[in-house]
Amino acid sequence: MSAYFSKRNLNFLLHEVFRAEDLTQYHHFADHDRGTFDMAIDSATHIADTLMHPHVRDVDRNQPELKDGQVTVHPSIRAYIKAVGDAGLIGAGFSFDHGGQQLPELITSSIGFILMAANNGMMYTGLTSGAADLIASFGSPELIEAYVPNMLSGNWQGTMALTEPQAGSSLSDVTTSATPQPDGTYKIKGQKVFISAGDHDVADNIIHLMLARIDGAPKGTKGISLFVVPKYRITESGKVSNDVTSTGVYHKLGQKGVPAMHLTMGEADNCIGYLVGQPHQGLPYMFQMMNGARIGVGMTAAGIATAAYHAALQYARERPQSRRLNEKNALDAPQTAIINHPDVRRMLLFQKAVTEGSLSLLLEAARAYDISRVAEGEEKENAHLLVEILMPMAKTYPSEMGVQSVSQSLQTFGGYGFTEDFPVEQLYRDIRITPIYEGTTGIQAQDLLGRKMTMKGGKAAQILMGEVGKTIAEAATHDELKPYATMLKTELGRVQEVLQALMPHAGAGDVERYLSDATLFLEQMGIVVVAWQWLKQAIVAKQAMLTQNPQGDELAFYEGKLHTMKFFFHYEVPKTLGLAARLKDTEVLTIVSAKELAL
Amino acid sequence: MSAYFSKRNLNFLLHEVFRAEDLTQYHHFADHDRGTFDMAIDSATHIADTLMHPHVRDVDRNQPELKDGQVTVHPSIRAYIKAVGDAGLIGAGFSFDHGGQQLPELITSSIGFILMAANNGMMYTGLTSGAADLIASFGSPELIEAYVPNMLSGNWQGTMALTEPQAGSSLSDVTTSATPQPDGTYKIKGQKVFISAGDHDVADNIIHLMLARIDGAPKGTKGISLFVVPKYRITESGKVSNDVTSTGVYHKLGQKGVPAMHLTMGEADNCIGYLVGQPHQGLPYMFQMMNGARIGVGMTAAGIATAAYHAALQYARERPQSRRLNEKNALDAPQTAIINHPDVRRMLLFQKAVTEGSLSLLLEAARAYDISRVAEGEEKENAHLLVEILMPMAKTYPSEMGVQSVSQSLQTFGGYGFTEDFPVEQLYRDIRITPIYEGTTGIQAQDLLGRKMTMKGGKAAQILMGEVGKTIAEAATHDELKPYATMLKTELGRVQEVLQALMPHAGAGDVERYLSDATLFLEQMGIVVVAWQWLKQAIVAKQAMLTQNPQGDELAFYEGKLHTMKFFFHYEVPKTLGLAARLKDTEVLTIVSAKELAL
Repeated sequence: MSAYFSKRNLNFLLHEVFRAEDLTQYHHFADHDRGTFDMAIDSATHIADTLMHPHVRDVDRNQPELKDGQVTVHPSIRAYIKAVGDAGLIGAGFSFDHGGQQLPELITSSIGFILMAANNGMMYTGLTSGAADLIASFGSPELIEAYVPNMLSGNWQGTMALTEPQAGSSLSDVTTSATPQPDGTYKIKGQKVFISAGDHDVADNIIHLMLARIDGAPKGTKGISLFVVPKYRITESGKVSNDVTSTGVYHKLGQKGVPAMHLTMGEADNCIGYLVGQPHQGLPYMFQMMNGARIGVGMTAAGIATAAYHAALQYARERPQSRRLNEKNALDAPQTAIINHPDVRRMLLFQKAVTEGSLSLLLEAARAYDISRVAEGEEKENAHLLVEILMPMAKTYPSEMGVQSVSQSLQTFGGYGFTEDFPVEQLYRDIRITPIYEGTTGIQAQDLLGRKMTMKGGKAAQILMGEVGKTIAEAATHDELKPYATMLKTELGRVQEVLQALMPHAGAGDVERYLSDATLFLEQMGIVVVAWQWLKQAIVAKQAMLTQNPQGDELAFYEGKLHTMKFFFHYEVPKTLGLAARLKDTEVLTIVSAKELAL
Repeated sequence: MSAYFSKRNLNFLLHEVFRAEDLTQYHHFADHDRGTFDMAIDSATHIADTLMHPHVRDVDRNQPELKDGQVTVHPSIRAYIKAVGDAGLIGAGFSFDHGGQQLPELITSSIGFILMAANNGMMYTGLTSGAADLIASFGSPELIEAYVPNMLSGNWQGTMALTEPQAGSSLSDVTTSATPQPDGTYKIKGQKVFISAGDHDVADNIIHLMLARIDGAPKGTKGISLFVVPKYRITESGKVSNDVTSTGVYHKLGQKGVPAMHLTMGEADNCIGYLVGQPHQGLPYMFQMMNGARIGVGMTAAGIATAAYHAALQYARERPQSRRLNEKNALDAPQTAIINHPDVRRMLLFQKAVTEGSLSLLLEAARAYDISRVAEGEEKENAHLLVEILMPMAKTYPSEMGVQSVSQSLQTFGGYGFTEDFPVEQLYRDIRITPIYEGTTGIQAQDLLGRKMTMKGGKAAQILMGEVGKTIAEAATHDELKPYATMLKTELGRVQEVLQALMPHAGAGDVERYLSDATLFLEQMGIVVVAWQWLKQAIVAKQAMLTQNPQGDELAFYEGKLHTMKFFFHYEVPKTLGLAARLKDTEVLTIVSAKELAL
């Protein structure tokens, strides 16, 4: 089992590259060791193997339907949610105080990776975890007691209810209203769309973490508050409907296992919400959770692309077709496996480079996220800034390049890839949402160039460049890696050139011009940080080969790492040439002038 | 209607850029004029508007099913096939002798573009046209009489039956057998897969143009013959089953309107095939038809991507979201239409550049194809070589970049793009087959670099470069276009540099090394020839603005052409930098050594 991801690779990243056990030196993680980390990972893998992966097609082919106000999901969802809850994995990252396992994000995000690689249509528990985390972090003790335990057990579903028909990327336009009641609660009125797991028949209750505007609140983002809005209120006389109506379920291209709901609150003027934390602090609270959520989306994308890569790799090893190009006329010779054709091998190396590079980048971000939460002083602050600046790439690279990677997986199968006889057509559909939700690629790009590159006077950017510089310096001590260290240094210089070309626009206050090609800058930065991750992996692989005398599969594993690092530098890194050329180009072509263009 | 493509743009290309009427100076097209061309286009548009586009979802949501050996397709297919047959459009390109309209490929491929933009799940008539063309071109008068009229009327379906389970890209491995019978017919035994429209309930008969190997034939591609294998034999006593069994219907990611069949011939040893032309000439016959077929696939891709672009464009004009970046704090201001955000405008310009550039490239190839068939002497030969060298790009660029273009259409819709409430999710699925069928991108790349670049001592390449050079020279006479003429000239130089780096491998007989990155070379060449097409369009637009004093929509149309040309040169052309860097790079990473790599 687990043919949808490589346990060896995950262990390499967790323990050889990112040295998970080092985190146990911090007080918060002191009760853990390699054993408890492995136990959580093994527990997740067992659930993924037995209760999730076997149903990957079922949940796609039998999508949720809304009938008579009730959403029915595939029956396999029940056993999976229960198992994840029973194993304590919904609360894996929660503090002991809140009934959690107090595991680092490095481990919990790896668990997310495994579950999403197995069956990304089963994303219910990740959503509950994120919603419960908001309550645990910012809610009153009463709210925590009332909701968190039932969510961590898997009995109650959690959701993030942000988007409205007129407020997608622009959250400042949220209009759902919250009217104060004498008892301290609020009456909620409005509509939310695209609410994943926003209603279904498996959970006993659905707990929406909802953004709304208290009557009279300031306009824009400064007047948005966060509420707990349950499907059912729990009263002394039992469960009472809370006037949250399932207005519709979206039928989607992929991720069909989880219903995306259109919800209407307060049709009968009887929808009650409970304020989380302080009024008007909804967006800041959300922002504090956003890094974790974005790591989660990145892991979803990396998981899907990894499953597709492993399917393509297996197929390419088994599928005979044609003869090698230098032996074209050997008609009596049997056909060769397609993995032996350079073009197919290039496609596979691309998939390996993208998927393992993405996972590495996400674990780098997760580790920094952990340190930002449990360390102190400058270490904490620096780790926080590193997470902040890595996040746009850690969300976007796995998503955007994951889409391309799965497309190459599909191509590897030829005509069969287009059929439902193989798993890739589904994964091709599933992954396409990841560059959209949790901040589109365009939004991530504005975040990177408009906020993160300049935050704290550029300190976040300096910290990132410093970390990359350390890897470059270390790589330069190995003859085989030195050329790649030099190449990465060149890439850092190229980023500087682009910034020098763009900064005058920011200085002049022309934000629109400054950010007009931000998406291309994000693409460039994505390549640079993943090149960094590959060089980092190559150093560890090289050290292992020098010191551990690996043999057989182990030797091949480390050689594969070195080889794929080289592939990334020789095939992917050159793409920055075109990106930088465009970014430094002064011709303005996408900014609206007074005169509308005929498109 | 026809919101799925721009009639204005098609007319611009057909009549202003490629001057369709000039073709009527050739004897073969002498009976035609602008009026007959327009009539055929209008007739196709009417069918597309009324019988095809309204059913674009129906045929996707109700895919063909195989029950009790019978394939049932959506009922709307019947009226569409009848209308296309009745309008004479199945035989639009056939000679008057064969009951056709003797229209140039420039017009017939434009018709294909319109029909596929309207509803690419309705591709039945295009398949019949291609199959009937093989019979008309190479069959005996008896075969032609027996089959062609019934196919051109739409009563009988035609198919191309090439692929077998073990012979996809490698047609030399076809094993379907043909055993000569005393009456001159052959008994056929074997299996074919992925046969589009290979069986359905709308046609009275299904006529397979099938590759098979006559007993004792030479190995490889030199022993493959072409047969007509009907579903029913027509005898004096009526229709008799011809022992072609529908073994299965593939369920697919997209293009669900048309069944892809798995067929088994000769289970009861009673499947008769009729030889087309000479024995062992199957592949050469197919190759002579291949350019038309590949233009057809390119047009399918361009049509799908165009439909997606027009949907995205309309949405972007209507969807309000957020405020312009320089007015972020104007919270009282209404939200702006997303087309006013530079990032969205960049995505739309990308889609316009790809789709209109693709259509232009395909029409360039179609026009050369026409001249290659109807001209004489050197003109004919040169046109033939131009078609040959353009074809890998004309098939691949619209397909590969079309996939990316539809992905950007989907992204333009944000979360809504991922739902079935809008048409793009279907188009995103539909277009994904185009880089696979009719020769995968990898096969096209080998064809370009391995065969076309070097054919006739490089003459085809010289002719292409000569044509591009003419456009550069003409563009250089306009101040506004001169910088782009210079840029395109630089790109031709970059292609030469790459070839100089690669040719030594070909010279040394190391074909595997020479072709190992052929796909990247094809990508580079695709960008260059589409840049050429954009410059060509810009010259015509510029001339029109200088000489015709266009106003209003007409002025905006021409300005849009100039603007999009600039966009292509500033955003797409720089991608050749990275491609050329890799292609000139000497590090070999995708060729299998004795030692297997751990992927």
